Amino acid sequence: MKRLTLRDQKTLHYTLSPFHKPTLTVSPGESVVVETEDAFSGQIRKPGDRRDTEKIPWGNPQSGPIYVEGANRGDALLVDIVKIEPTIGQGATRIPPLGYYPGLSTLPLAKVLGVELPHGSRICPIKDGKVYFSEKLALPYEPMVGTIGTAPEIEAITSVLPGPHGGNMDFADICPGARVYLPANAPGALLYIGDAHAAQGDAEISGTAIEMPAEITIKIDLVKGKRLRWPRIELADYIVTTSTTGAGRTLEDATRSAFFEMILWLEEEYGMDRWEAYQLCTQVARVRMGNIWSISTKFPKKYL
Amino acid sequence: MKRLTLRDQKTLHYTLSPFHKPTLTVSPGESVVVETEDAFSGQIRKPGDRRDTEKIPWGNPQSGPIYVEGANRGDALLVDIVKIEPTIGQGATRIPPLGYYPGLSTLPLAKVLGVELPHGSRICPIKDGKVYFSEKLALPYEPMVGTIGTAPEIEAITSVLPGPHGGNMDFADICPGARVYLPANAPGALLYIGDAHAAQGDAEISGTAIEMPAEITIKIDLVKGKRLRWPRIELADYIVTTSTTGAGRTLEDATRSAFFEMILWLEEEYGMDRWEAYQLCTQVARVRMGNIWSISTKFPKKYL
Amino acid sequence: MKRLTLRDQKTLHYTLSPFHKPTLTVSPGESVVVETEDAFSGQIRKPGDRRDTEKIPWGNPQSGPIYVEGANRGDALLVDIVKIEPTIGQGATRIPPLGYYPGLSTLPLAKVLGVELPHGSRICPIKDGKVYFSEKLALPYEPMVGTIGTAPEIEAITSVLPGPHGGNMDFADICPGARVYLPANAPGALLYIGDAHAAQGDAEISGTAIEMPAEITIKIDLVKGKRLRWPRIELADYIVTTSTTGAGRTLEDATRSAFFEMILWLEEEYGMDRWEAYQLCTQVARVRMGNIWSISTKFPKKYL
Amino acid sequence: MKRLTLRDQKTLHYTLSPFHKPTLTVSPGESVVVETEDAFSGQIRKPGDRRDTEKIPWGNPQSGPIYVEGANRGDALLVDIVKIEPTIGQGATRIPPLGYYPGLSTLPLAKVLGVELPHGSRICPIKDGKVYFSEKLALPYEPMVGTIGTAPEIEAITSVLPGPHGGNMDFADICPGARVYLPANAPGALLYIGDAHAAQGDAEISGTAIEMPAEITIKIDLVKGKRLRWPRIELADYIVTTSTTGAGRTLEDATRSAFFEMILWLEEEYGMDRWEAYQLCTQVARVRMGNIWSISTKFPKKYL
Repeated sequence: MKRLTLRDQKTLHYTLSPFHKPTLTVSPGESVVVETEDAFSGQIRKPGDRRDTEKIPWGNPQSGPIYVEGANRGDALLVDIVKIEPTIGQGATRIPPLGYYPGLSTLPLAKVLGVELPHGSRICPIKDGKVYFSEKLALPYEPMVGTIGTAPEIEAITSVLPGPHGGNMDFADICPGARVYLPANAPGALLYIGDAHAAQGDAEISGTAIEMPAEITIKIDLVKGKRLRWPRIELADYIVTTSTTGAGRTLEDATRSAFFEMILWLEEEYGMDRWEAYQLCTQVARVRMGNIWSISTKFPKKYL
Repeated sequence: MKRLTLRDQKTLHYTLSPFHKPTLTVSPGESVVVETEDAFSGQIRKPGDRRDTEKIPWGNPQSGPIYVEGANRGDALLVDIVKIEPTIGQGATRIPPLGYYPGLSTLPLAKVLGVELPHGSRICPIKDGKVYFSEKLALPYEPMVGTIGTAPEIEAITSVLPGPHGGNMDFADICPGARVYLPANAPGALLYIGDAHAAQGDAEISGTAIEMPAEITIKIDLVKGKRLRWPRIELADYIVTTSTTGAGRTLEDATRSAFFEMILWLEEEYGMDRWEAYQLCTQVARVRMGNIWSISTKFPKKYL
Repeated sequence: MKRLTLRDQKTLHYTLSPFHKPTLTVSPGESVVVETEDAFSGQIRKPGDRRDTEKIPWGNPQSGPIYVEGANRGDALLVDIVKIEPTIGQGATRIPPLGYYPGLSTLPLAKVLGVELPHGSRICPIKDGKVYFSEKLALPYEPMVGTIGTAPEIEAITSVLPGPHGGNMDFADICPGARVYLPANAPGALLYIGDAHAAQGDAEISGTAIEMPAEITIKIDLVKGKRLRWPRIELADYIVTTSTTGAGRTLEDATRSAFFEMILWLEEEYGMDRWEAYQLCTQVARVRMGNIWSISTKFPKKYL
Repeated sequence: MKRLTLRDQKTLHYTLSPFHKPTLTVSPGESVVVETEDAFSGQIRKPGDRRDTEKIPWGNPQSGPIYVEGANRGDALLVDIVKIEPTIGQGATRIPPLGYYPGLSTLPLAKVLGVELPHGSRICPIKDGKVYFSEKLALPYEPMVGTIGTAPEIEAITSVLPGPHGGNMDFADICPGARVYLPANAPGALLYIGDAHAAQGDAEISGTAIEMPAEITIKIDLVKGKRLRWPRIELADYIVTTSTTGAGRTLEDATRSAFFEMILWLEEEYGMDRWEAYQLCTQVARVRMGNIWSISTKFPKKYL
């Protein structure tokens, strides 16, 4: 199996971009083990550690891009999440400054209020299928991929934000067993991956899950001619559409967007009438938030 | 056990209001069977039926208010949902006009576009623990209470909207076994209930679940001196806080609001440090949408 | 000219509601001088004064309702703002607690942060066409009506919020010379008015303008059979449509809503093609925010 | 005076990016005439013309980047808008497809509804200080720069969206006489400019103003060590702060953000106490929307 180590990778990336040189090339159908750094760029490794933003002003470094042979704009990648393993036996979390707070970010309220939150650095050992939030509290190890996406066609998008290209969606459903469909927008599709979490709640309200460096095993396939507006996911029991907030898309709009994508999917691939699909989704669909910027709609496979 | 039938009720209510006369009085600890009409005011009973908005311009009629002895502003009601049974062996759903569409309502886009959606009236028989979405497709009967709330102190709020007083929250988690805490804002608290659903997906995207007239069995308790900003729910496995959208609260704000309520709850009643609670919620909380206006945060009881 | 004094009024109202008894009845075409209290219920009259929310938990008291003979659901009131005069030669402003902060209200962020803002009580003398923000800084006296609206049909809506019925819209354009169209939803329309401001900036960002008790002279007319979805305003140079935020209407949606209302108005009453109106609005319309919940679209009369 | 013609420019850019090679280099203090294409990439020049998105899938082409000697991350550019002249004596507007509609974009509602809007291509001759919306309707020629911004540090951002780096803000106030402050994020700052409008209303509701190819005369200065979170503008009578919507910033948040920036500006450069500034802004500030993604707060200079 091919491997993309941090050593091979040399430079991690803070944008999903068509301008970075591939660090690995694969053929459709190949499996790869990708080594990824944690979202703190490895700066929080022991109690008391803090982010050094002078040294690294950005967050959420990505491995890749991986060039997929034969992929072109208008195709889709299908990425199977096979396995996610911690590489240093621990994860970490913290409380970001108020200015960072999702929704208040770039909003100088924090500066006006002059409030400082506790730093809250917390190292969480991982062993025997458990993540130790504290000495007393063990959570189940439920690993997931926080950030996965392809290069946009002409943009380079910060790895902190999600969008139609994927990116920092933080869906806990992107875990071993999940199949992720991503739009290809550039030659080779240029897959980025990183930001593994040992555990994460819906909405990731503080903005930092239990972040860990990891080895992520994926299998990469190519679906020629499949044009996607947004990433899709297939789980054991659900098909899933996604959307994200952004200029012109509030969380309300993103929710509707994910539903409309589902309705069109049910019509196009499963032969359901769109209005019947609309009515059926109203009764059986589940909604799951990734972080506060991303949302997904889940339709139970048993009704397909 | 006391009963509040539609016959007793005489007039159903389209607002949650301190101005309606109680139709029943209970002592704390009493159980009641409340008969409720469906959200269409019973106007859709056979295929082809349509809402007659000349006759009844409002939606979502409520039974009650039930006066709870001893309740006053600053107390909380605790309502146990015991049982929800269909009264006519069927439910109904439809596709509301575009103008109604959540988020576009009162927004004359529909009028500008001149679009008309199919009516989509659909009668769904309920039997043997199944709801028949169609002849071919049976869904599990998973009944829930769409609307439950208390009278605001001085306002009369349309039964179509949710708010800090409860109302049309459409949480599928408000099902048999759930314990719902509601703020008391007026003497007797004045409990309203209605809008039973035989099944409903998260976000209730079309705005109409499988709506049914029902008999709802509840047990009503009083928690003196418990002041609530928003309704709370206790489930077998979770404690749940809620919030809703409204002027000054986008869906992003409502999500944060529900989380902050949870953090304060964990601090006040379970002795957790608020910042530790904030960090722990980030790893283990679940978010569940009711309709597109309401959202809940769920914290697993096993970590209390 | 008829007068409605605070003494006549006896009890001020904190909701716009069909349930309050009229304090004055007028015939269409009559002018009235209405005495109004300030938004602090008169509790801030000298430096150091604070709101006593134990005594009066609500804000923004209203005079009225005024019963307009012949008005019924489906008609419109036309209210000319003739004159606004301070009654005690001063106004007042303050900084509300963070919990109040528009958009954070009912959001317990403030409680989590434990932040307290300065109280900021400020008495502003008004004389010779000036409002003294401080001894050194005189602003022009530019009086306006913060809250004006009619009773909803079955709801009683807090006087703090705006909505399709009018209410706390805080449009600085509702000043002497403005003609305000309001929907009638109940017999007699039941007009409420209050919350005069000696000066106010767009968005009223702290939530409190220079609030003053005032005598407001209005002329009340009735337009039979004119059904309105939202209030409209006519100024010397503009026709104006309005909208507000609320559950299902973000500020983005409210902005679009006001534009679509304008486009339909231009089509229905001025014979413009709706798509041409849409294109022309894109080039010449102005947008003005009232408070952070309300927004208006202004079309220049010279292009009618 | 230096000139940057479309011929010199060779390739127009559809992102604001640090990866494009400068097409001109200037010293601080120099003036430049920049030739810009219209937002349709010149594809709509006569009645009936349509956008050919096969040929050019992106919108809003930019001239530049202009390298400013001595500029570095942490400095600010000061760009004086001197003159804006149409180069072909006409502008054009149209109605974009529903899918494009701001707020519904990337939201497949249009596809679900199957609605098609009229194309609405309209050529508008410009002469003698007038823009001819139609043969009968002449609007004043009020030219403005729709898009101006600097390269982000590591991102390449579509020229269609605005952000902290500037970009497609569509503020009608960016007209001759305006002084625009932009953050420098990269060596040389890399200024992009384009998207001139002959006229535009607030919110640019259809998404297309009267778009024209133009010659824009600017003077470029450098303010060393001036760190900006967002662009600022100085007008004859106002100082102006700006913000934009985006993931985590609804229009409500963006409005507050622009106000908080203003309050901090008043404190830092004009010695006002921040809470007094907050109170004064509440009374005297104006808010002006650019397009539906961008908003500005204006403080009258007379109160400085």
